[in-house]
Amino acid sequence: MTDAPTTLHPLDDATALRELEPGRYSGVMGVAYWNMAGPFGGTSAAILMRAVMDHPARRGRPVAQTVNFCAAIAEGDFEVSVRLVRDGRSTQHWWVELVQGDTVAGTASIVTGPSRETWGHRPGKPPVMPPLNEVEVLPTAGRGAWLERYEFRFERGPPVRGASPDNPGSALSQLWIRDEPPRPLDYVSLASLADTFVIRLLQVRGDLPPVATVTLTTYFMADEAEMARQGSRSLIGVADTKAFKHGFNDQSAELWSDDGELLAVSHQVVWFKS
Amino acid sequence: MTDAPTTLHPLDDATALRELEPGRYSGVMGVAYWNMAGPFGGTSAAILMRAVMDHPARRGRPVAQTVNFCAAIAEGDFEVSVRLVRDGRSTQHWWVELVQGDTVAGTASIVTGPSRETWGHRPGKPPVMPPLNEVEVLPTAGRGAWLERYEFRFERGPPVRGASPDNPGSALSQLWIRDEPPRPLDYVSLASLADTFVIRLLQVRGDLPPVATVTLTTYFMADEAEMARQGSRSLIGVADTKAFKHGFNDQSAELWSDDGELLAVSHQVVWFKS
Repeated sequence: MTDAPTTLHPLDDATALRELEPGRYSGVMGVAYWNMAGPFGGTSAAILMRAVMDHPARRGRPVAQTVNFCAAIAEGDFEVSVRLVRDGRSTQHWWVELVQGDTVAGTASIVTGPSRETWGHRPGKPPVMPPLNEVEVLPTAGRGAWLERYEFRFERGPPVRGASPDNPGSALSQLWIRDEPPRPLDYVSLASLADTFVIRLLQVRGDLPPVATVTLTTYFMADEAEMARQGSRSLIGVADTKAFKHGFNDQSAELWSDDGELLAVSHQVVWFKS
Repeated sequence: MTDAPTTLHPLDDATALRELEPGRYSGVMGVAYWNMAGPFGGTSAAILMRAVMDHPARRGRPVAQTVNFCAAIAEGDFEVSVRLVRDGRSTQHWWVELVQGDTVAGTASIVTGPSRETWGHRPGKPPVMPPLNEVEVLPTAGRGAWLERYEFRFERGPPVRGASPDNPGSALSQLWIRDEPPRPLDYVSLASLADTFVIRLLQVRGDLPPVATVTLTTYFMADEAEMARQGSRSLIGVADTKAFKHGFNDQSAELWSDDGELLAVSHQVVWFKS
């Protein structure tokens, strides 16, 4: 980790891990994906995913990931430890911890499974979207590092301030989204993209109370071939919430390829102060 | 654990834990909630939840639970270990393992958080249901122990065999559901109820290939007061799937009170053989 010029994509740089011993890695939390009080949650999800992808005992591809955001993550050194909890016939169950000093700042349980063809059926429908070029790019310059690392084109539900707690706006967003600069899709970037749906409460209430994602679960429906077909082009994203109450809310998202394949579904719980 | 008569509800009996030392418990997997090749997944979820509810260091109420079904669980003794991974200001992060012999058969990450009143808003809508008594009870006698432990009244999408792989039926179900015999709602029973939505593939395909839930995430939106108001009356449940492919499918569910409150949302990934 130096300041030397690199041709790595910022996401690959942010998720780079150095093996200390099998299953134990060190990394450096940089500011390329910084959010208000720490790194963007998607970056932590991507680091935890990378640790399993890099593990020599991994077979198959990610099927599910639950990330728990336990504590604030600071700039600087961290360690990641990976444990293969169960090596089953068809799936592997992993447990990953991201530690800074004495604090477990983030954890993940990840399931990997075989990549294979089977019967398929898709009751879900991709959202109807106008062509990419007909949807304006959200200006993100100066609005926070992580926002600048994605290209957002909102068809519905941009994170603007047209609502109030007494007159809540819609929680639904629908957009074209991709890494900025563009980057070929893989499970590491998909893990991060699943968290790019700005916290619903902000657009619903139009204000900015303290909020934090507590836990994030993503199911990876795509195989390698679908991601290769999608390449670095923009995905279609949808996000919504069912209920805000007792200081928490659910938030759900779908990520679709531009040819109508469901690539991932994702769910999170968000804590809000008041 | 004896065969002596008990007045415990079967769910309380199935989830009873004996403390061996703080954070370590023993239990006995019985057959009251048996499924085809092991206990019904909801029972494992309820046991893992019970272990955290019983932990002396727990503050607050469950907010989220991710259960990973790692290996087949056999009848008989098991141990549960609970680790408080992070004791934060507003949330606690727990890790729970259910072990039989040398095998980690199930794990859970559970988040607990303060019970409190805040601003609230509910963009989601409860499904429109006919009154309870106008919906027929699903006959479950002799169809498997766990099915007999719930009362199902399907308005839409009963698990019948009117479809085929080439002519898939709808994945959507909508029903009244409660414990049988009735039992006042709490987080333990809610954790189990979240898994009572019969695996979607069976009703969609109308056949019975090998299937297994791999991981289940439930968000608990209800506070104690909402559950007390609901008591032991039937809840409204909805379940659906977006995509079956590459040997896995997503499955989502909502549990609503009969007065229109969202009590829980739940998501799972199901493995299927072919």
